[in-house]
Amino acid sequence: MITIIIGTNRQDAVSKNIAHYYQGILKKKGADSQLLDLKELPKDFAFSALYENSGKNQKFNDFRTKVENSEKFVFIVPEYNGSFPGILKTFIDGLKYPDSFSQKKCALIGLSSGVQGAGLALSHLTDIFNYLGMHVFAIKPKLSQINDHFDGKEISNNLYNELLDQQAEGFIKF
Amino acid sequence: MITIIIGTNRQDAVSKNIAHYYQGILKKKGADSQLLDLKELPKDFAFSALYENSGKNQKFNDFRTKVENSEKFVFIVPEYNGSFPGILKTFIDGLKYPDSFSQKKCALIGLSSGVQGAGLALSHLTDIFNYLGMHVFAIKPKLSQINDHFDGKEISNNLYNELLDQQAEGFIKF
Amino acid sequence: MITIIIGTNRQDAVSKNIAHYYQGILKKKGADSQLLDLKELPKDFAFSALYENSGKNQKFNDFRTKVENSEKFVFIVPEYNGSFPGILKTFIDGLKYPDSFSQKKCALIGLSSGVQGAGLALSHLTDIFNYLGMHVFAIKPKLSQINDHFDGKEISNNLYNELLDQQAEGFIKF
Amino acid sequence: MITIIIGTNRQDAVSKNIAHYYQGILKKKGADSQLLDLKELPKDFAFSALYENSGKNQKFNDFRTKVENSEKFVFIVPEYNGSFPGILKTFIDGLKYPDSFSQKKCALIGLSSGVQGAGLALSHLTDIFNYLGMHVFAIKPKLSQINDHFDGKEISNNLYNELLDQQAEGFIKF
Repeated sequence: MITIIIGTNRQDAVSKNIAHYYQGILKKKGADSQLLDLKELPKDFAFSALYENSGKNQKFNDFRTKVENSEKFVFIVPEYNGSFPGILKTFIDGLKYPDSFSQKKCALIGLSSGVQGAGLALSHLTDIFNYLGMHVFAIKPKLSQINDHFDGKEISNNLYNELLDQQAEGFIKF
Repeated sequence: MITIIIGTNRQDAVSKNIAHYYQGILKKKGADSQLLDLKELPKDFAFSALYENSGKNQKFNDFRTKVENSEKFVFIVPEYNGSFPGILKTFIDGLKYPDSFSQKKCALIGLSSGVQGAGLALSHLTDIFNYLGMHVFAIKPKLSQINDHFDGKEISNNLYNELLDQQAEGFIKF
Repeated sequence: MITIIIGTNRQDAVSKNIAHYYQGILKKKGADSQLLDLKELPKDFAFSALYENSGKNQKFNDFRTKVENSEKFVFIVPEYNGSFPGILKTFIDGLKYPDSFSQKKCALIGLSSGVQGAGLALSHLTDIFNYLGMHVFAIKPKLSQINDHFDGKEISNNLYNELLDQQAEGFIKF
Repeated sequence: MITIIIGTNRQDAVSKNIAHYYQGILKKKGADSQLLDLKELPKDFAFSALYENSGKNQKFNDFRTKVENSEKFVFIVPEYNGSFPGILKTFIDGLKYPDSFSQKKCALIGLSSGVQGAGLALSHLTDIFNYLGMHVFAIKPKLSQINDHFDGKEISNNLYNELLDQQAEGFIKF
């Protein structure tokens, strides 16, 4: 069971649709997955579930449990302000350390409306996950100008599809 | 007027005390400053002040206005999970673009209880601020093992004091 | 006097032509500049001018002197293997520390034949220059797919020209 | 067979001794390894084995062959000027693409005389190796102030030994 994390809390985020699309790719290859949508986080979790309140927010604890029970993760990472959304790191800051990610494995997919494809975002996240002891799969597709290549259901860009396929194929065996 | 941003919402954060300490250094050199404490952010701002709700949270807008009216910033950046706190990036994600930071200047100070002094955190933040068009002062003190060198009021480590003094001196003229 | 450093030793590098182009931009704005071409480095400098041989290679010392006598630098940085050319860092490794770059200023321009525009290269270089105490100008044009937009003499892409102009204008006053 | 790459061409580099030490750790765990010492590179390889001269330097080609025939690498990475030595990247720039590293695996070890333990160097290298399609083992020991903890034969710091042991143990199975 692979957990796909939608790395933003934006309403109607393209990330969510990409997550569904990636779930389809995994399914065709015989791999089950579940989605974790940061939009569903308790709205005040940055204050009610971190630091001195760590573990005290039951709704947030449900997210924690799902993470702790997973061994493999896919992160869908939109580019905001030259890196990944702050809420994704806040979510990570609220997880149990080191049980959540240590000795586990993840794959990263970057999205952007602009031309960078979240390149720096994926670099920063790799630093963080390596720090937490999680192995990051080397191939990290950077889907730039995503709105030109994705209609919400299908990706029309062949290179993007090849990269995602290659990543999914390798990550299942990683 | 320099705005010092306390980069975490943790209660009783050492960052807040370092911010006061740094304010003292600036004052001795004749530079006025104000503090902006992320702990005071509306608890649900990640949901009520970003994206489709941008500009709609009046309490968050007060933070926005202070940022827009400042030309120089000092960020006190504690290390969490190998980078800076997620809430700091979420705060940045809620600011007005590009008026908030473009063509402005900032200085960064890293803190950690461990040995790294938030080195990667400062690297990630530099990427973000450069992306937003803000110049980052080159000297970025990394105050590792801060609890051994700071009693909440005074820093006892001479090297740390020299670095902070050198940074403050240069940043005022930057 | 601004020193423009051509960040590769490749023969017929597009970086050299971009350096000339940028020199033209600076000249129109009234700023003099000189070129430093890594292709002219002594071929064995990585062995004859570093570490135990620091300062012993007279031809390399001429490069050192030019760097030490400059206050402002522009680096033309092609993307190789996901970062900047190794020879550029080897060149930096041979310079005098800390006189070469401390408290000086630089601007960075990334080039790539692919779509990334050397984004990670510029991030890595910023880390290095900040470590060495050199301020990096925030605007760092990333000229991706350069061969589609530059004929060796003129850049035809308007956005690229605007970014370079904006950078040059700001850097002269930085 | 694991290939351990000594990431500098400095004479009497501590990296070489650490490489031997690490080879001992691997051997105790039943894993064979060979050393590749960048000090042995042809002195002018940056000019005679790259770009237009790719593949033409027979002595450099011997290095290439060793890399192409290896599936797992350990990089011993000393910190120079806030990142890794330029010669290591120049070496990478001379290798065959993409056969050298694609779909292979590596582990990184950082060394520094100062307090940072080459943290940024390892981050930059991870970006490069991931770009080249090589998976990087998450645990990357940062051996700061190495001269206080290593006499050239044995590491006296227990934490360092634990980290290296944990890394080697995991990397053999990675």
